Amino acid sequence: MYELINKVKELNPLVLHYTNNVTITDCANMTLAIGASPLMSFSYEEVEDMVSVASAVVINIGTMNSSYLDLFVKAGKAANKYNKPVVLDPVGVFASKARGELTNKLLNEVNFTVVRGNISEIKFIGGLDVAGKGVDSFDDGSDASEIVKAVAKKLNCTVVASGITDLVSDGEKVYKIFNGTAKLKKITGTGCMSSSLIASFLPCTDKPIEAAFMGTLSMSLSGELADITKPAVGTFKTYLFDNIDTLDVETFEKYAKVEL
Amino acid sequence: MYELINKVKELNPLVLHYTNNVTITDCANMTLAIGASPLMSFSYEEVEDMVSVASAVVINIGTMNSSYLDLFVKAGKAANKYNKPVVLDPVGVFASKARGELTNKLLNEVNFTVVRGNISEIKFIGGLDVAGKGVDSFDDGSDASEIVKAVAKKLNCTVVASGITDLVSDGEKVYKIFNGTAKLKKITGTGCMSSSLIASFLPCTDKPIEAAFMGTLSMSLSGELADITKPAVGTFKTYLFDNIDTLDVETFEKYAKVEL
Amino acid sequence: MYELINKVKELNPLVLHYTNNVTITDCANMTLAIGASPLMSFSYEEVEDMVSVASAVVINIGTMNSSYLDLFVKAGKAANKYNKPVVLDPVGVFASKARGELTNKLLNEVNFTVVRGNISEIKFIGGLDVAGKGVDSFDDGSDASEIVKAVAKKLNCTVVASGITDLVSDGEKVYKIFNGTAKLKKITGTGCMSSSLIASFLPCTDKPIEAAFMGTLSMSLSGELADITKPAVGTFKTYLFDNIDTLDVETFEKYAKVEL
Repeated sequence: MYELINKVKELNPLVLHYTNNVTITDCANMTLAIGASPLMSFSYEEVEDMVSVASAVVINIGTMNSSYLDLFVKAGKAANKYNKPVVLDPVGVFASKARGELTNKLLNEVNFTVVRGNISEIKFIGGLDVAGKGVDSFDDGSDASEIVKAVAKKLNCTVVASGITDLVSDGEKVYKIFNGTAKLKKITGTGCMSSSLIASFLPCTDKPIEAAFMGTLSMSLSGELADITKPAVGTFKTYLFDNIDTLDVETFEKYAKVEL
Repeated sequence: MYELINKVKELNPLVLHYTNNVTITDCANMTLAIGASPLMSFSYEEVEDMVSVASAVVINIGTMNSSYLDLFVKAGKAANKYNKPVVLDPVGVFASKARGELTNKLLNEVNFTVVRGNISEIKFIGGLDVAGKGVDSFDDGSDASEIVKAVAKKLNCTVVASGITDLVSDGEKVYKIFNGTAKLKKITGTGCMSSSLIASFLPCTDKPIEAAFMGTLSMSLSGELADITKPAVGTFKTYLFDNIDTLDVETFEKYAKVEL
Repeated sequence: MYELINKVKELNPLVLHYTNNVTITDCANMTLAIGASPLMSFSYEEVEDMVSVASAVVINIGTMNSSYLDLFVKAGKAANKYNKPVVLDPVGVFASKARGELTNKLLNEVNFTVVRGNISEIKFIGGLDVAGKGVDSFDDGSDASEIVKAVAKKLNCTVVASGITDLVSDGEKVYKIFNGTAKLKKITGTGCMSSSLIASFLPCTDKPIEAAFMGTLSMSLSGELADITKPAVGTFKTYLFDNIDTLDVETFEKYAKVEL
């Protein structure tokens, strides 16, 4: 599966983002670093034009914005219409009624290929009691494989729960990723960037679970490698992008700690 | 007072931002670096939900946006309603009639805990003649302690004027901070980030002037330390975040140049 | 012409941006790094106030936003009214009907001083068949001097086409810049930042082609210098800002590869 890292650089897929204002620059740079092309829009007028030429679409509700609520739904529906793989990142879905309602609407009106969140967000979507703070997750480290699998089955798509152990499931299989570092939570947007990476891999395979796995692993592994010398957060962020940029099959083979 | 740096990491307060689009990412990362959790929103729908769970609120008018004028007022009022400390950053208040009017409205309808600006902004709010360029300050280095104290008395809150010497006053006392480097003005958003830091400290003490002092000192001191090797601006910005991340009581005790 | 780098630091022009949300922070920091002052706004209310005090105006349609379509036209007209030099960056003009229409409207209702885009964007504006992907250019490296000159004549302004060779023309002369590195396309916003740099130079000369040349050369040369040690993209971006910050007449004289 690791050769997908070559495929993404070869295909250079166009990843269209309807996303938040906090991590939009980092998501663009992350998409470029892995070998894909980012495109961001907040325009109702060009949804059809943009989705029809995109290779994949990301919808990320991170900074809820009253002006974009309908835009995100429109973009998701267009992705379905044009048969484009589409990723939902329900940032902070548990944090407000409005986020819950928007996420609900999106899940009801759009067939997502992948839903990616932290473990609190995924549990919330699955209808469980969750503990979260703002848009951040509470992760006690306990095994949530069965929960993620159940949510994937319920949503009928691939689900990724980022956490101390990352879990990726299509409702049948569960892939586990043990790479990572707590420092990934010390910079903003590593979750959003993972969604961009997953979307970058989606056009490279007909198995969404593989793209979800590769995107998630790319972030956790690069974070781990960026943290080897224990840099402070400014330097860590720079190294994170460096490590995404230089990822190759050999790096995955040497350092990946996964359970398939 | 320096032990507040431990308190912020222990409490991990949730700092809700209604802010501008230029420095929003850096403010989020700065909030994380000091040990708090950032949350940003541009949604009218979730103001009550978000403010009610936040530990502190920042309102920053940096990139005036026609769609958010009422949102910022609504958020400020909600902060008062839920008894949350709230910081105003009146970026470029002197630069346009619209910024003046919005700031006026905010100051009239919301009780702010801290108002932070550069010396030109604070003087303008105090009703004095000011010289500024765009959203940047003209600072001739002369002692503005009495002015800042008078503005604090007038606004009935803590006021911070960032500059060559930073001044922090509650209308009675004036704290002075002599740390810093001119390079902090060579990257965008160090003022906005100071407001995020102040908001991060506010839930850690019942004395707003202490939080204002600690947030302002954290920025000026970290900037000074980041500039020791005289790096160019790209590297300087990375080091600034590194130094915020590694701040501890010892660093404050060793390097702070302040007058209480 | 290289002494304009000293002029920009001396004048410290105020560069007002109506721009996109992806590269807005980097454009602000780039403007500061070259020695100018950035100012960003999304407010209809303050257009007249802001444009009247600005030294130059940039209009960049990068993340099309339904709420700003009229704002951009209003800002452009105000720039003409107040005789301020104004730069258009028609990001991805070929990517959607809406972008084409907005660009058309801007070009019809505003007299731009400089139009800067990648070669695909400039060809599209010139009415030629183009190949582009999303907002990125397809550049086969063939000489497009005559095309750029013709577009400049048609638009009656200075035109910059960024590419493997950068081309700058006022419809008569064509300046060529051979500096650069492919890595500039591996981080987002280097085109947008070039527009900010051009706008920073415009108030420093009465020859727009010189400002366009200096802004474009500053980016391509700094990119080349930042890539000397072949860093990965995170580090490269940091170095890019460092090199812009330290540009001086000597650096231009030593490393510039240009044809005037």
